[in-house]
Amino acid sequence: MEKSPEKEHPREAFGWAARDTSGVLSPFKFSRRNATAKDVYIKIIYCGVCHSDLHFCRNEWGFSAYPLVPGHEIVGEVTEIGNEVQKFRVGDKVGVGCMVGGCDTCAECNNDSENYCDNTILTYNFIYHDGTRTYGGFSDKIVVEERYVLRFPDGLPMDAGAPLFCAGITVYSPLRYFGLDKPGLHVGVVGLGGLGHLAVKFAKAFGVRVTVISTSPSKQKEAIDKLGADSFLVSSDEVQMKDAVGSMDGIIDTVSAHHSLMPLIDLLKKHGKLVMVGGPDKPLELQIFPLLTGRKQVVGSCTGGMKETQEMIDFAAKNGITADIEVIPMSYVNTAMERLLKGDVKYRFVIDIANTLNPN
Amino acid sequence: MEKSPEKEHPREAFGWAARDTSGVLSPFKFSRRNATAKDVYIKIIYCGVCHSDLHFCRNEWGFSAYPLVPGHEIVGEVTEIGNEVQKFRVGDKVGVGCMVGGCDTCAECNNDSENYCDNTILTYNFIYHDGTRTYGGFSDKIVVEERYVLRFPDGLPMDAGAPLFCAGITVYSPLRYFGLDKPGLHVGVVGLGGLGHLAVKFAKAFGVRVTVISTSPSKQKEAIDKLGADSFLVSSDEVQMKDAVGSMDGIIDTVSAHHSLMPLIDLLKKHGKLVMVGGPDKPLELQIFPLLTGRKQVVGSCTGGMKETQEMIDFAAKNGITADIEVIPMSYVNTAMERLLKGDVKYRFVIDIANTLNPN
Repeated sequence: MEKSPEKEHPREAFGWAARDTSGVLSPFKFSRRNATAKDVYIKIIYCGVCHSDLHFCRNEWGFSAYPLVPGHEIVGEVTEIGNEVQKFRVGDKVGVGCMVGGCDTCAECNNDSENYCDNTILTYNFIYHDGTRTYGGFSDKIVVEERYVLRFPDGLPMDAGAPLFCAGITVYSPLRYFGLDKPGLHVGVVGLGGLGHLAVKFAKAFGVRVTVISTSPSKQKEAIDKLGADSFLVSSDEVQMKDAVGSMDGIIDTVSAHHSLMPLIDLLKKHGKLVMVGGPDKPLELQIFPLLTGRKQVVGSCTGGMKETQEMIDFAAKNGITADIEVIPMSYVNTAMERLLKGDVKYRFVIDIANTLNPN
Repeated sequence: MEKSPEKEHPREAFGWAARDTSGVLSPFKFSRRNATAKDVYIKIIYCGVCHSDLHFCRNEWGFSAYPLVPGHEIVGEVTEIGNEVQKFRVGDKVGVGCMVGGCDTCAECNNDSENYCDNTILTYNFIYHDGTRTYGGFSDKIVVEERYVLRFPDGLPMDAGAPLFCAGITVYSPLRYFGLDKPGLHVGVVGLGGLGHLAVKFAKAFGVRVTVISTSPSKQKEAIDKLGADSFLVSSDEVQMKDAVGSMDGIIDTVSAHHSLMPLIDLLKKHGKLVMVGGPDKPLELQIFPLLTGRKQVVGSCTGGMKETQEMIDFAAKNGITADIEVIPMSYVNTAMERLLKGDVKYRFVIDIANTLNPN
């Protein structure tokens, strides 16, 4: 017989959980395992709010199990280590992203692409090696196998650094993998939200020329003045879009809503790459001829492996890259979710877990 | 006032042309320019029949101009050279493919990617530098700027070598460019026609494991026994397709008819590449999630540059790669077009121009 979440493990834990497809979060007592030899125990200090948290809370991808504790942009402090842990000591600042486990034996895991392992264990709503469900970072503590813990660099603020562990790596990885990280290249960024604003910052740090492509003319000033984009295209402005045809080496498309790919493919130079990192749930139309005549590529990318996530966060620290955030107390999370749904956030909510998650 | 095709140039030429959208070809007297300093005059000996010839003859891409002399898989012998020609001498065996000119100054031309030059001049139905229309290889002679002429290697049969200049390079180029040319990789080939059968041969010569994916179970024996494929998948057989999920590093999709991409994307391993070389005219549906979770790529490719075309034909000669052909007389061409439309050819018609194109 399955034990209750509160009793299945020896350590008391506390968080906020969604209980049903309403997605409304409320306080939740559960438990976490003792640290095994390779585990790192982490007191959670901040946790970012990702759009996928919203999808999971509301079961929009169809496989949510309740109670569900979301949160996979975690920053905290090591409180305990297993006796085989080598990279961390008690008191270290660390991060945890989308994954807390994998098979550790397949070609992907052996190639530092744990994010593409068929048996990746996500930070929440997945079944861990011990058969129990994973619970995320909207909670007071988490215990994670060393391999899936990141060193959090000195000099990077913990609150504004938290979103880098999902939103940051999601845009950093394809910029690197698809070679869109060379000075002199021109990269478009579609959608200026949590992912998009970080894509602009990383691309600029690589020395790339960046154009933001958005449906909202109102975002132009901020994109250029605050985020450092070089130019801005209003996607509904046919003249602007036509003038930019064939001008981009690559595009990072962060939009999850249904949208047309053709205007974006037209913006690419020959041999250009349209990189999808948002996941529209219905199929999009793809015309083949423009792919042929320009040897263009439509590609996907999903987060990043542990090694490149460490590289990303170190690069961010070195280059002063953080997310633009609004720090909120835990009690505000349901309001934050509503605002997130309307795109009313610049550009990421981060929950002040350490100071506002109170079990009493 | 525009001069007639018969009078606009000083040299008499003779070929077969389509006159209207019926696409029916009939004898046609026209003319060709004198050789300029960089030109190579070629007596055409063989010319392959490509599916795009059929599209052009019937104006299926909407920009055919009549009379239209098709043919861009040309093999012949040099009869005269301009005084600046360096690579060729009278009597040399040579080939001409899809292009006879370009801007010669853009980044693509400078990067040996003349096929992606915005001002590529195709071998027929295009306007040449001198303002006159280009006429293709269903004719007795052609005059081509040296840059766009290929050396035809000794030891390669001229008839069965002709289709390599379009069908061959069209599959060779993406196998090379997208890194699907390494021993140990597994590549699928969709559609076993002119392009597909050459994709099998080139991939095998690279040491790649090849699986043919076809709607026609009847092609299995030939694919394996004759062309050397390692295995065969009937695309309508759900069990076979399911067993092969996640098994291929890349797929060369040669099919121009409307078809579903998802079963092909499912066949790819993580990070795999679906290479489109056929051009369905209507948009295909593309689901984004499988691209994300597998970092998969849907890419296009269109023929190849001059340097890689020379590499391709030299590689073919060295490795004994030729097209499987049916040699036909010029007078049979309309019947051949009908048969081509039905897929009734293994795998390429080649017209015996030298012996059967008779102006009298």
